[in-house]
Amino acid sequence: MSGRILLLSAVVGFATLCQAATDPLPAWRDGAGKQRILDFVREVSTPGGSHYVTPAERIAVFDDDGTLWPEKPGPQGLFALERLRLQAPQHPEWQNQMPFKAALELQGRYLQEADDASVFQLVAAAHAGRTQAAFRSDAREFLGTARHPRFQQTWTRLAYTPMRELLAYLRANGFHNFIVSAGSVDLARILASETYGISSDDVIGSSVVATLREEDGKLVLRRLATVHSLNDGAIKPLSIDQHIGLRPILAAGNVRSGGDIDMLRYSQRAETPGARPQQSLQILIRHDDFEREYAYDEKDRASLNAADANGWMIVSMRYDWRQVFSFQTAEAPAPAPAPADAP
Amino acid sequence: MSGRILLLSAVVGFATLCQAATDPLPAWRDGAGKQRILDFVREVSTPGGSHYVTPAERIAVFDDDGTLWPEKPGPQGLFALERLRLQAPQHPEWQNQMPFKAALELQGRYLQEADDASVFQLVAAAHAGRTQAAFRSDAREFLGTARHPRFQQTWTRLAYTPMRELLAYLRANGFHNFIVSAGSVDLARILASETYGISSDDVIGSSVVATLREEDGKLVLRRLATVHSLNDGAIKPLSIDQHIGLRPILAAGNVRSGGDIDMLRYSQRAETPGARPQQSLQILIRHDDFEREYAYDEKDRASLNAADANGWMIVSMRYDWRQVFSFQTAEAPAPAPAPADAP
Repeated sequence: MSGRILLLSAVVGFATLCQAATDPLPAWRDGAGKQRILDFVREVSTPGGSHYVTPAERIAVFDDDGTLWPEKPGPQGLFALERLRLQAPQHPEWQNQMPFKAALELQGRYLQEADDASVFQLVAAAHAGRTQAAFRSDAREFLGTARHPRFQQTWTRLAYTPMRELLAYLRANGFHNFIVSAGSVDLARILASETYGISSDDVIGSSVVATLREEDGKLVLRRLATVHSLNDGAIKPLSIDQHIGLRPILAAGNVRSGGDIDMLRYSQRAETPGARPQQSLQILIRHDDFEREYAYDEKDRASLNAADANGWMIVSMRYDWRQVFSFQTAEAPAPAPAPADAP
Repeated sequence: MSGRILLLSAVVGFATLCQAATDPLPAWRDGAGKQRILDFVREVSTPGGSHYVTPAERIAVFDDDGTLWPEKPGPQGLFALERLRLQAPQHPEWQNQMPFKAALELQGRYLQEADDASVFQLVAAAHAGRTQAAFRSDAREFLGTARHPRFQQTWTRLAYTPMRELLAYLRANGFHNFIVSAGSVDLARILASETYGISSDDVIGSSVVATLREEDGKLVLRRLATVHSLNDGAIKPLSIDQHIGLRPILAAGNVRSGGDIDMLRYSQRAETPGARPQQSLQILIRHDDFEREYAYDEKDRASLNAADANGWMIVSMRYDWRQVFSFQTAEAPAPAPAPADAP
């Protein structure tokens, strides 16, 4: 190989490297949506710019089930069902009581359609009486071995690749990422830590009432069957305020239940009268990819209506994501002529 | 000056520098207590050691009023009192209702002896109806100008120097420090951020019920007069579990109300059966320094009894701290012949 060719291939290699290095979101298809993310992050993180936001205020909040990984079914439902079956002989009342009756009869099929409140009621009841330490240890074991019924992958491998990239890109630009889940906070913490490196204290979620008890000279926390907080809908802004104490400038959720509308709205406008309007970004993910994931919508279309009314970014899994999961390599189909968010 | 003298003074200067550099806790008097802190931190952060703890699990929790800064009075009481006076004409019922009656009549003297629950009731009532944004903005302004009645310093300057050093030393060794306050979380956040660089989401505290309301097309959080959670006593371990999801390995509180006993006990013993006993450290601060700060004790001596029974480290402000505040330079008196924690 001559020196000239060697030099040329080095230059080509370097150019490829530069291209890869300059695209922090390779699993997102180039287009208006991706550009909006890149522009937003550049604007809020450029010192001296008119939309600059200090790192301490670069708070980003993410729903998890359906936003960071699949929700049909979500992991907490499968975990609850496993224990519910074991506990059923001691709870004859479950045979005639909803949602237990439906969950025990329909099993996994029930979880496909159940709402978040009912699923969390299963979680609360199934693990009542366990210590928090035992619950977490069981959950960790479950998540290490359980597989998604359709994809046959463990939950840690079901993270959406484009959202992994987005979280990493935000973190690299001084953002502090939080998960704000309608599911069990204890389960979400394990998954967030193992899948995204999001630390335990950066996860907000639904919780059960626990009691502090002295057992064998130790202080132990035991779970009760009562729901302490179902972290959904209007509760999400309240729990964000309670846990973080700052209004986020980026919020991401998904279309299905309408449970993320308030969180996205809350992130959009600064509350302080007279304050300069703050740049913010709202991302709403639409499950319209039957082949690579699922295709489903929201009965009353409330999330999409809110997105249209407030100018939120709507992400089509089918058209905006070149890749959904790390174990799939297929490209997204060519962009549709009409935008996916048209009514 | 000859070359030899110049060299000598350079060597002396370097030696002094080295000594300072090797003592991360210069405001702590050398002795058994200080050594216990140094040993603990070295043991849990030495990879391969038998007491090694991963950085993710190096959670340290600190009470604030009376542990990180003075509590006679705590800042939230003064802040509430200021607004209570303004609001009193609209609340004739306060004239006959405790704790409002006592607070309005006795003013600052009331705060010297009031319990945490009563003071937080004042905070909740005084600021009811305000938005969270307005409350925080007022609180920031108050903390920027208000002065402690005795020390005539702003609150950001009232941080105990030895505790500042301890927080910095822990952070440098991979610990994640949290404040777990019985006072208003919103006020504690501002003070923690400005005084210790502890971020807003790393503060847990008492909170009022808030409502999410749509006002002028914005989602706004408004405070109600109702207490949502008084973060004291047995609630502290529960709120730590809820917010952090991990059991701390270091906890610090102070003698006065017994409100930190459960938090310190909770940090002491791992819950998981069969797990290797985890190294932990509990620090209980005793206010016995009438000259430099205050001297007061606990009526039933419960905190000191718990410290004795569980082998906690008791810190005498008078004897263990060479310096209390950055604006004082006096040395602590020579150690007493009998240990300060003897019954």
